Amino acid sequence: MARPRTPLLDRERIAAAALRLLAEQGEFSVPQVARALGVQTASLYHHVDGRAGVVELVRERVCAAIDDAALELEPWDRALERWARSYRAAFAAYPRAIPLLMTTPVRAPKVLAQYERAVALLRAAGFPEERVMPLLTGLENLILGSALDLAAPEAMWEPSPRTPLLAAALTAGGPHRADAAFDLALTALLAHAATLRVE
Amino acid sequence: MARPRTPLLDRERIAAAALRLLAEQGEFSVPQVARALGVQTASLYHHVDGRAGVVELVRERVCAAIDDAALELEPWDRALERWARSYRAAFAAYPRAIPLLMTTPVRAPKVLAQYERAVALLRAAGFPEERVMPLLTGLENLILGSALDLAAPEAMWEPSPRTPLLAAALTAGGPHRADAAFDLALTALLAHAATLRVE
Repeated sequence: MARPRTPLLDRERIAAAALRLLAEQGEFSVPQVARALGVQTASLYHHVDGRAGVVELVRERVCAAIDDAALELEPWDRALERWARSYRAAFAAYPRAIPLLMTTPVRAPKVLAQYERAVALLRAAGFPEERVMPLLTGLENLILGSALDLAAPEAMWEPSPRTPLLAAALTAGGPHRADAAFDLALTALLAHAATLRVE
Repeated sequence: MARPRTPLLDRERIAAAALRLLAEQGEFSVPQVARALGVQTASLYHHVDGRAGVVELVRERVCAAIDDAALELEPWDRALERWARSYRAAFAAYPRAIPLLMTTPVRAPKVLAQYERAVALLRAAGFPEERVMPLLTGLENLILGSALDLAAPEAMWEPSPRTPLLAAALTAGGPHRADAAFDLALTALLAHAATLRVE
């Protein structure tokens, strides 16, 4: 028999299986990934460096959808805004992976390279070095909180006769509430960031 | 035999058991909560309105640590800042509960009452009604993203010789990186919010 053209195990398939488990359970174990792929756990360890290695495969896969070429745009705030919007969309596709990826150290080379580009952008735009990571991280916290919010129902509150102001504010806020909230906060962050630059 | 002074099942114990499961697994089922409390699932349903009822018990318990009296302070931005900081601390204690609570509609009366107070604060401070929920939600997204970040390691990136700018920015950023990021973004949001008021 001819060899199958697609290897049973490759990093792409391992990442996809782990992401499916994360989407279902908010968690995964390496034996679960192996079972989902119909292989022994030991075989999996020939392809990845333990559970941490699988987490980094998942991170690379989710982050591949981020438009990091946007980080080459000018001016810096247009670059950052475009990057932030695609970052939110990429993670909104996998909301249940967010807590794991946010609390595991970033080792994936492609993702580290994206941070390197973002830092280069902000340094070139005149941000003092000590402000760069607080700004990037504050922006990421907003992006990832907003990605979770995008996975929430449009009707996120069930106001009662005892909460008339909330009910009125919800009506006045209009549709697409998650987008409106992200737009407002992103604008705020970029406007304030502009005041931190030293030219 | 005398009756036990603490009832085997009460809402507080149900919430605590569900929170423990969430902290361990990022998820819970009602049968798991029942098992943890040593009772039948059917008995649990005498105390709560299904799984959604347990989620709201969890929400009330987590949100009980938020300083909502801060919403009575003046001026409005001091009130919002104090509230936001205690909100982050309350959820940082249960990071794995964040995705569930962020994506399930809010029904808990005490939590809805807290939103009512926040909306009242912003209306009294002169915010147009249509801006109130986008502002509150944008702030919450930042708070909850930052609560997840507070659960992350201090060394969240593993820079390599290929990422010298990232390495330098991390060093320059100094310690307490999660607090620095939250402070910067919270300041930004409050500063921008001030421009949205109509007096």
